[in-house]
Amino acid sequence: MEMGSDEKVGLMRKGFEWVKKWVKGLVGKLVEVRSKATALGKDDPRRVIHSLKLGLALTIVSILYYYNPLYANFGVSAMWAVMTVVVVFEFSVGATLRKGLNRTFATLFAGALGAGAHYLAALSGHVGQPIITSIFVFLLACILTFMRFVPSIKAKYDYGMMIGILTFALVSISGIQDDEVVLLFEKRISTIFLGVCVCVLISISISPVWAGQDLHNRIALNIENLAIFLEGYGSVECLKSLQDEQFTQEYKSILKSSGIEETLYNSARWEPGHGCFQFRHPWNQYLKIGALTSQCAFRIDALCRNLSSSNIQVSQKIQTEIQETCMEMSMESGKALRQLVSSIRELTQPTRAQIYTHNSKSAAKRLKTSLRSSHLWEDCDFLTLIPAATVGLLLVDVVECTEKISEAVQELASLAHFKSGKAEPMQSEKEKVQPNIGVAFVTIPISSV
Amino acid sequence: MEMGSDEKVGLMRKGFEWVKKWVKGLVGKLVEVRSKATALGKDDPRRVIHSLKLGLALTIVSILYYYNPLYANFGVSAMWAVMTVVVVFEFSVGATLRKGLNRTFATLFAGALGAGAHYLAALSGHVGQPIITSIFVFLLACILTFMRFVPSIKAKYDYGMMIGILTFALVSISGIQDDEVVLLFEKRISTIFLGVCVCVLISISISPVWAGQDLHNRIALNIENLAIFLEGYGSVECLKSLQDEQFTQEYKSILKSSGIEETLYNSARWEPGHGCFQFRHPWNQYLKIGALTSQCAFRIDALCRNLSSSNIQVSQKIQTEIQETCMEMSMESGKALRQLVSSIRELTQPTRAQIYTHNSKSAAKRLKTSLRSSHLWEDCDFLTLIPAATVGLLLVDVVECTEKISEAVQELASLAHFKSGKAEPMQSEKEKVQPNIGVAFVTIPISSV
Repeated sequence: MEMGSDEKVGLMRKGFEWVKKWVKGLVGKLVEVRSKATALGKDDPRRVIHSLKLGLALTIVSILYYYNPLYANFGVSAMWAVMTVVVVFEFSVGATLRKGLNRTFATLFAGALGAGAHYLAALSGHVGQPIITSIFVFLLACILTFMRFVPSIKAKYDYGMMIGILTFALVSISGIQDDEVVLLFEKRISTIFLGVCVCVLISISISPVWAGQDLHNRIALNIENLAIFLEGYGSVECLKSLQDEQFTQEYKSILKSSGIEETLYNSARWEPGHGCFQFRHPWNQYLKIGALTSQCAFRIDALCRNLSSSNIQVSQKIQTEIQETCMEMSMESGKALRQLVSSIRELTQPTRAQIYTHNSKSAAKRLKTSLRSSHLWEDCDFLTLIPAATVGLLLVDVVECTEKISEAVQELASLAHFKSGKAEPMQSEKEKVQPNIGVAFVTIPISSV
Repeated sequence: MEMGSDEKVGLMRKGFEWVKKWVKGLVGKLVEVRSKATALGKDDPRRVIHSLKLGLALTIVSILYYYNPLYANFGVSAMWAVMTVVVVFEFSVGATLRKGLNRTFATLFAGALGAGAHYLAALSGHVGQPIITSIFVFLLACILTFMRFVPSIKAKYDYGMMIGILTFALVSISGIQDDEVVLLFEKRISTIFLGVCVCVLISISISPVWAGQDLHNRIALNIENLAIFLEGYGSVECLKSLQDEQFTQEYKSILKSSGIEETLYNSARWEPGHGCFQFRHPWNQYLKIGALTSQCAFRIDALCRNLSSSNIQVSQKIQTEIQETCMEMSMESGKALRQLVSSIRELTQPTRAQIYTHNSKSAAKRLKTSLRSSHLWEDCDFLTLIPAATVGLLLVDVVECTEKISEAVQELASLAHFKSGKAEPMQSEKEKVQPNIGVAFVTIPISSV
């Protein structure tokens, strides 16, 4: 059964190779993880700062344990402060406030209710007490759990409901073994309050991440992406299939990102006034604009799919009758969106956008008229006309959607009392824009737009 | 300063009126809440059962407090069982398992790590211990918090990461004041394990809600909604604007519900085999099908918008050349989807769907050909032709999407080893279908589809 020395060496070599391979694999994985983490941090450096902030908050509340006079006061209840920090500290100020306030008030109310239930149950003597308490806990847990299914409650108070069940159960049940219910509850609520305060203070004071600001930026960015597409599309021979991926990539990011706005909104509504935003900033209007932008992105997607599937040959006639009008429509609505973006970013009234919207609407009307006019059809190649007309009609669809976005942004501007500044540059800009409108449309008063 | 008796009576009456109004308002609100709750419960009765199940689980773990021998063993650690039940018990089995396993293993690993950190820090004496512990806690909190931003970790282990930070902090910090770290940790992990077990057992044994089954049903329902639209649309004069809201309402539910499938998927992958599904059922294929269905719904939406905005007059020529082909396309792809639905529901291979897909593809090809043929254009009213052709091309878009859905479902059927049964009725069905194909397409072998 003894191995020869050759066999031993062979086995050792094999073992060595295996270890080498394993270490190599591990190192490779670690390098991969490191590069991933670096990319994640570079993508949004606030993530790194958030991690450091949480570490700091946790270190601060752990002083409750280290510093003996404090520990003598709070005892094991200091644990609740640590728990609160880990659970409540979220990425944005709004989310932290939502969870913190939910936790504090739910603990307060449910704790008081639990203490009441404890005293009520205690009246029924040692045998009855566990039974009565059980019934109370069962009922409250059922009711609050069911309430968590109500959509409006789920959006705002879901966490509070959970903490409510938890606190009520802990306070009323633990009363059975420990009669110092009120004292225990006092300690718990004060440590939780302390934890929430530390979270909120650190969240606000060290490079705060405002969900409202994020929502604001995000909406502006989405509209800008639409503008980039429409301007890019308006500058090329827009009936040919799109080779250039440069400006078609932008709008696709909007298609994927539904739901993020809703999350930001749910946090933003808890935030106090910050930066340029007051406490009751009309955040729900952003949701409306967000829905319209994603609608617009889907319509652009339909347009692009149609372009890539159909092979349009552009004759001279189509070029003058359809293509130029399409290019104008696209360019003008792109400019309108660009104006909306800058008015959102600078919090000013989007007065100039109306001119461009008006231009694109006129162009759309002209396109429809020329598609209906029979002289287009008299001596034209039908086979090329159908796909070109389809693209034109889909573009009309997109333009209509940009109008709706424009209206929604104007509503936002009036709801949020955006500054009405920049009236002077608007006038000069208007003159610069006029040549684009064309003679036929100067007569239409802008007020009718 | 004294009031006359008239004034007193007046004031009392006012007060009475106010109380009456308040009570009336309260009663009104309560009635409203009750009707809302009833609607919520009727909409999905499993919500009521879930609430009762949570109440039951909570009552069971509270025995740890009531029953003295148990309390003598676990003490205040019994609190962790109550907490675990409230936090871990989710609507579906999969979500409960995910949270439960995350909580158990995170507590186990982070607790062991925390105990290790405690002993390591204890080596540095009374002064150094808090500092070393703080550094450990800070570092681990930063790293785990940052890891929560990694999308793949967030989807599966987000809760575990949080519990990891919490447990590590509690175990390593509390060691400073209490040297029975290991004993405390043992009690905590056993009560948490107990809580998780109660949750999982009740979740599985009392009318279980399987996220996988929900996902399966949901995908089938979404495809069915598309089928309802396409069949309905194929049975009316489909170039006229749609008055009948009956079959256009169905597909709209798909537009709103993105994100739900992802949530269900994240829970379903944690579930053991249940019903007809094995443990490693290809749940991610459902996500693929879900994305295609919502794409298809958006294309149908574009079609409907186009129909409602354009006013199509149907001449005799258009009726025969376009409308009938459109109706066939719509009807056949509707039937194909209907076959897919029944094959998903019965877990059988979707062999019959291919025939219908083939039919609708042929019809689409015919439509394209007739749109390109010049004889359609010779003596036709162009003004009515353009919108009709646009609708036709949009419908081709929809049909292409249904093909993709069909392919994805076939992939699912082969991945999940669906039964290949029902070969006999397929043959007879095929014969029934043949007349629809038309003479020109019989020669095309089905294998080329």
